[in-house]
Amino acid sequence: MCRWVAYFGNPIRPEMLLYDAANSLVEQSRSDRMAGGQPNADGFGLGWYGSRAEPGLFRSVAPMWGDRNLRDLAGQIETRLFLAHVRAATGTPIEQTNCHPFRHGNWLFMHNGYIEGYLQLRRELLLAVDPALFPGILGTTDSELMFYLALTFGLEEEPLTALERMAGFVEATGRRHGIDEPLQMTVAASDGERIYAARYASGPVVNSLFVTEDADAIRALHPADERFHGFSDEARAVVSEPLGDLPGVWREVPPGTAIVVQPGADAELPFAPRAP
Amino acid sequence: MCRWVAYFGNPIRPEMLLYDAANSLVEQSRSDRMAGGQPNADGFGLGWYGSRAEPGLFRSVAPMWGDRNLRDLAGQIETRLFLAHVRAATGTPIEQTNCHPFRHGNWLFMHNGYIEGYLQLRRELLLAVDPALFPGILGTTDSELMFYLALTFGLEEEPLTALERMAGFVEATGRRHGIDEPLQMTVAASDGERIYAARYASGPVVNSLFVTEDADAIRALHPADERFHGFSDEARAVVSEPLGDLPGVWREVPPGTAIVVQPGADAELPFAPRAP
Amino acid sequence: MCRWVAYFGNPIRPEMLLYDAANSLVEQSRSDRMAGGQPNADGFGLGWYGSRAEPGLFRSVAPMWGDRNLRDLAGQIETRLFLAHVRAATGTPIEQTNCHPFRHGNWLFMHNGYIEGYLQLRRELLLAVDPALFPGILGTTDSELMFYLALTFGLEEEPLTALERMAGFVEATGRRHGIDEPLQMTVAASDGERIYAARYASGPVVNSLFVTEDADAIRALHPADERFHGFSDEARAVVSEPLGDLPGVWREVPPGTAIVVQPGADAELPFAPRAP
Amino acid sequence: MCRWVAYFGNPIRPEMLLYDAANSLVEQSRSDRMAGGQPNADGFGLGWYGSRAEPGLFRSVAPMWGDRNLRDLAGQIETRLFLAHVRAATGTPIEQTNCHPFRHGNWLFMHNGYIEGYLQLRRELLLAVDPALFPGILGTTDSELMFYLALTFGLEEEPLTALERMAGFVEATGRRHGIDEPLQMTVAASDGERIYAARYASGPVVNSLFVTEDADAIRALHPADERFHGFSDEARAVVSEPLGDLPGVWREVPPGTAIVVQPGADAELPFAPRAP
Repeated sequence: MCRWVAYFGNPIRPEMLLYDAANSLVEQSRSDRMAGGQPNADGFGLGWYGSRAEPGLFRSVAPMWGDRNLRDLAGQIETRLFLAHVRAATGTPIEQTNCHPFRHGNWLFMHNGYIEGYLQLRRELLLAVDPALFPGILGTTDSELMFYLALTFGLEEEPLTALERMAGFVEATGRRHGIDEPLQMTVAASDGERIYAARYASGPVVNSLFVTEDADAIRALHPADERFHGFSDEARAVVSEPLGDLPGVWREVPPGTAIVVQPGADAELPFAPRAP
Repeated sequence: MCRWVAYFGNPIRPEMLLYDAANSLVEQSRSDRMAGGQPNADGFGLGWYGSRAEPGLFRSVAPMWGDRNLRDLAGQIETRLFLAHVRAATGTPIEQTNCHPFRHGNWLFMHNGYIEGYLQLRRELLLAVDPALFPGILGTTDSELMFYLALTFGLEEEPLTALERMAGFVEATGRRHGIDEPLQMTVAASDGERIYAARYASGPVVNSLFVTEDADAIRALHPADERFHGFSDEARAVVSEPLGDLPGVWREVPPGTAIVVQPGADAELPFAPRAP
Repeated sequence: MCRWVAYFGNPIRPEMLLYDAANSLVEQSRSDRMAGGQPNADGFGLGWYGSRAEPGLFRSVAPMWGDRNLRDLAGQIETRLFLAHVRAATGTPIEQTNCHPFRHGNWLFMHNGYIEGYLQLRRELLLAVDPALFPGILGTTDSELMFYLALTFGLEEEPLTALERMAGFVEATGRRHGIDEPLQMTVAASDGERIYAARYASGPVVNSLFVTEDADAIRALHPADERFHGFSDEARAVVSEPLGDLPGVWREVPPGTAIVVQPGADAELPFAPRAP
Repeated sequence: MCRWVAYFGNPIRPEMLLYDAANSLVEQSRSDRMAGGQPNADGFGLGWYGSRAEPGLFRSVAPMWGDRNLRDLAGQIETRLFLAHVRAATGTPIEQTNCHPFRHGNWLFMHNGYIEGYLQLRRELLLAVDPALFPGILGTTDSELMFYLALTFGLEEEPLTALERMAGFVEATGRRHGIDEPLQMTVAASDGERIYAARYASGPVVNSLFVTEDADAIRALHPADERFHGFSDEARAVVSEPLGDLPGVWREVPPGTAIVVQPGADAELPFAPRAP
């Protein structure tokens, strides 16, 4: 199980959600609360949108809790949209290119979950990636491959449809190989303007996903800290598990659901795999 | 809290205690059983005696569970005496030179515990190190400094007395600075012939320490595995916590006690800080 | 020999001096031009001033040329004052805490050179550090120790005098130990408002130091690149060796000289060790 | 350009060839002599055969010259056959899984060279790997892929033929994509009994390869060091460039040639790409 946080809103220093909240991502790197209490310490990553179209990326194989560079970076930059991730490896090597988020042009992508039987399916899934996109694959994880499949199926044009086609293709491939429940995923992707997130699994157990109801939920993360009062009304966080001790403030996204966090009203839609 | 394992006996591959036992050190790197269930993932080290007087040392800042090099090394070498350690940092940086065991000539040293108020005491403790030994200090931990204080106080001549003088000096220094309970320690040191270990704390809570009663205890770690039948009668393991599911097989070393694991009969003695 | 770059001026992305110039710092990490053509690949660091008083710090033990995180960071942030360094270790371990620049509060410090006989002198030099500052020492290099000696001798109040007292103290200590030429140094320090740099050695061979005569020198680094036209008239770079192919554009700072790069007119003064 | 060393003979500590010879591999990591004087500092690896059929592997992304673990390991183990490599990356990420040697069962493989246009060809080359072998690919280099292609084409049964088929397949694939000179390679592979090495390039410039004429050549590496007298008559080293100052002692392997270092008489054969 990995853990992740995505933020959209007025520019903030990422440290507020990564380090300062009660159950901030750094706490989850030591021990998550909703996935067995195991460490998520096989690397981490922060992707953030600044003044360029292409986001910045900082990834490392170290446990997040001990990394001094991330601590500094998260306290210096200010960003209106970022994705951050702590990894618990599920078989593929602990390497920088296997850390989330992954980047392609102005897009970022991160994931919590796995493709069942990935080693067995990997070759076939790789073959389905658009040959023009293929050279962009730098690592060896199922997650990065899901990103490149989604890109192949149109992520940049119709993000949610492309994610559904990716899920459909992974499921179809897995089932052809006799795997009953090929997919477990909560994903987030962003083009720098919106966050697209989805919660889905082939079987009945589905990884958790939460979103803040409104900016008050984020402000409540640290009522004593003045910086937390400054969140704009549009500020939203999408997370693997609540960052604070008041879980009621967070709304659980139902299984089989996608959300779009964006300027104006957010959207929530059913998410179902479809034939690629 | 750190966790460690020391082995003395017929030559074995370290993997048997580091990876193959039920609660092997790699399991403890994810989550210890007797110290709160936290990860011990701020680096690791293996020191082993081979065909040279000086032991080999392999240390890294990565979590032990994900390190492929240690996995290989522990399955290739054979050694009659080794010390292995997984670190949970207590304030000093996560760096290779801060990983245990530490080495000086043919000696190895490792530690689970801390000096209370170390940052405050560090300068004074450093000053007490023999100037001729001083250049050997490569890192910045309290543990390495305890090693160099013990060397200063005669570790190579009278190991247990030197450890008692080190403990006495640390306590006296701490108390001069108003610290009530300056020392928490379970240490192991070796010259390649014997393992010296001690369990002590200034206050009533003392880190755990166990030793195998006889070779049967080690054989019981993995009854189904033929390799585990091959332990010689002299084989002993000294550990922070039992490596197996049968804790009764392991004998707890009482607080305020030192043990010497050696050819022939082992020794057990009271351990009490003394004036340096 | 290490190599370094310090920049003062209108906000720029550090990549311009670290990657885009003809003989940028990344080229010098592979092979310097003025110090024997050896790699400076024992780690690197970037310290930059942003919107907080305390600068950000990104340091790593990897060779600069292969680090993807620094490449991204240097292309995302904008900063009006930064210090960057590539290290060639002279005996002390290759660890993150031994990478330059070093930081204390709002101050940064970096260095090219060495203290001759450092292992022999280290204990005595450490003792001279103000005990209140002592806990801030995280690594084991001569360079970090020079920084803490300068802080002890008043760096925050009278920077150049403090650097001279530090140099005087190192020389006096070295000579008491029979070392003829104890010090080789080109240093840079900053409080976020000014860059203080000095070039000095105890003997006749003195590490190189250059400063841009005016902003035209920086603009000439890459005449074809429009970004390079945007340097303000106050923009200055202080460097170990010229970043471009036109060395004439750069002014060599004479041995035994200190410079202050600051708003308004820069200053240039004689630099001579003085009794602490 | 990478650099490598392979050794076959009586058991020795690898340090003799990696650190103690005049132009040992660690020197070549700072600066090679025959390939432009650049650092080979994008990681290193040591694969050695011990008492198990499967060799041990120690690989790291650090420059070889600064790695304390390799220094220790190379001084502790004794091995009758080892392969060691220092990497200069040619486009693929600096990661542990991209470091040589690569391992499959009891086989090791390492390489100096490149596939021209690799990013463009990679997908097609990957597809040709036997699907049963495919899950063993852990990294993303051309070199590892060449290994898996050779395995696909029968490396374990007819090593030199398989290497020729691999070379032929890479050339055919490259030329189909309009690449004139697709392959530059000096490779070494071993099953633990023999070293197979080949020197070949599609064009007129071919990376260097040398082999010791007899054990006297290795003894001459360090005449003053008694350990170097102990090489058995069968001891051979195969290297990218001579390890010593007496290049005449080393025999250059001609382009388009393969050698087999083995018990009894070595073999030397023409090497030419063939249709897979």
